[in-house]
Amino acid sequence: MASQAKVAKSDGKNNHDNIDEQADKEQQEAIEQIDEVQNEIDRLNEQASEEILKVEQKFNKSRQPFFQKRSDLIAKIPNFWFTAFVNHPQVSALLNEEDEEALQYLTKVEVQEFEDIKSGYKINFSFDTNPYFDNEIISKEFHLNDTGEPSSKSTTIKWKSGKVELLQNIAVTHVRLTPSKGGRKRNHDEGDQESFFNWFSDHNDAGADELGEVIKDDIWPNPLQYYLVSDLGDDDIDEEDE
Amino acid sequence: MASQAKVAKSDGKNNHDNIDEQADKEQQEAIEQIDEVQNEIDRLNEQASEEILKVEQKFNKSRQPFFQKRSDLIAKIPNFWFTAFVNHPQVSALLNEEDEEALQYLTKVEVQEFEDIKSGYKINFSFDTNPYFDNEIISKEFHLNDTGEPSSKSTTIKWKSGKVELLQNIAVTHVRLTPSKGGRKRNHDEGDQESFFNWFSDHNDAGADELGEVIKDDIWPNPLQYYLVSDLGDDDIDEEDE
Ligand SMILES: [Ca+2]
Ligand SMILES: [Ca+2]
Ligand SMILES: [Mg+2]
Ligand SMILES: [Mg+2]
Repeated sequence: MASQAKVAKSDGKNNHDNIDEQADKEQQEAIEQIDEVQNEIDRLNEQASEEILKVEQKFNKSRQPFFQKRSDLIAKIPNFWFTAFVNHPQVSALLNEEDEEALQYLTKVEVQEFEDIKSGYKINFSFDTNPYFDNEIISKEFHLNDTGEPSSKSTTIKWKSGKVELLQNIAVTHVRLTPSKGGRKRNHDEGDQESFFNWFSDHNDAGADELGEVIKDDIWPNPLQYYLVSDLGDDDIDEEDE
Repeated sequence: MASQAKVAKSDGKNNHDNIDEQADKEQQEAIEQIDEVQNEIDRLNEQASEEILKVEQKFNKSRQPFFQKRSDLIAKIPNFWFTAFVNHPQVSALLNEEDEEALQYLTKVEVQEFEDIKSGYKINFSFDTNPYFDNEIISKEFHLNDTGEPSSKSTTIKWKSGKVELLQNIAVTHVRLTPSKGGRKRNHDEGDQESFFNWFSDHNDAGADELGEVIKDDIWPNPLQYYLVSDLGDDDIDEEDE
């Protein structure tokens, strides 16, 4: 079968060899020309990405005042974010009882996409004065460096004395959402080690942080639907303890 | 814990009840206002999608003459597409010996994104006169209807008599690429039922057709890299039969 690999030529200068050499040369030229055309296509692809990024940045800006207005309205509703989180099947699966106690004090959630959207995002969680920690805002942020390497970092939580054990009595492990698709789960009863607050110290999967992406891409675009609609497709296993 | 659920009020008209009612009413108003703000955000999201689609359409148009030029150049290289397919780990895994014989006659591959890109794409495969089938062009196309329902359809292959059995001697099953990640595999030796030509009659996964998407998103953007680079990360198991 035909191959682009160079075939060693015999020394014989018969007609056949000359034709072969001519064909090889033409093919080699065609390959070089394809490579040049490909460079033009690549250049257009880059231009397209840049233009799309600009559109996204423009609309991020025009959405901003509405997000601000929405935040102001949400502040009027006690436990809005807690309720939205509890009603979200994937986030809910992550919450243990201690998480739920502390999240009663969550007053505001804010997702910031960085100006160069490709480079990352930050989620700010604002808390009322509470018996668990001293922070008013706890954040986690995700970055991609120039070579596309992902990383994340978080605010250090200043636990009040005695509360570290209460909330961190479970080992800091890689926080996973996917295994528990079947709605809300009381993980601490099952010897599991998931926790909302452990997520802040979990930087193992910065490039595809599941909770970060659920909040950014699913909850933040429309949190009202989760506040209003309790556990669609869930068999309401946790209704009895409310 | 606080809940947005309506709480039945007692008849007592004491001060506390009035305060509760007032708070309920304010929260209800806030929810309605959040809903209105959310509609504005949704509208901006739609506008953003439309603008991004326009950018993609514009660049699809400007890329077109380069794709045409590339096709003309590729036509000068015998077995260009066959070689690119054989060198692509996922496509190669799908090819049985009969596929490879027939693909020797493949002269042109063309990916067309529909004007409304969201609505689908079509892949045309052009063939030289060959002993297997009478078609000059065999196509498979993928559509999304208005409700987002995916579907696919293909050219009926007009097999020459006796060749139906040769190429279709394996049951038409759901063509899967993912299970065989480890490079090229001679599936027919392993009792497997994958085949390139069976893919044309497989419409089970139109919304996420693996071979279609590999060709459209991975090979078509830069086929030269697969033509030139043979099986990266493969242990060259098939070199002995060439
Ligand atoms: Ca429930
Ligand atoms: Ca090989
Ligand atoms: Mg609130
Ligand atoms: Mg060719």
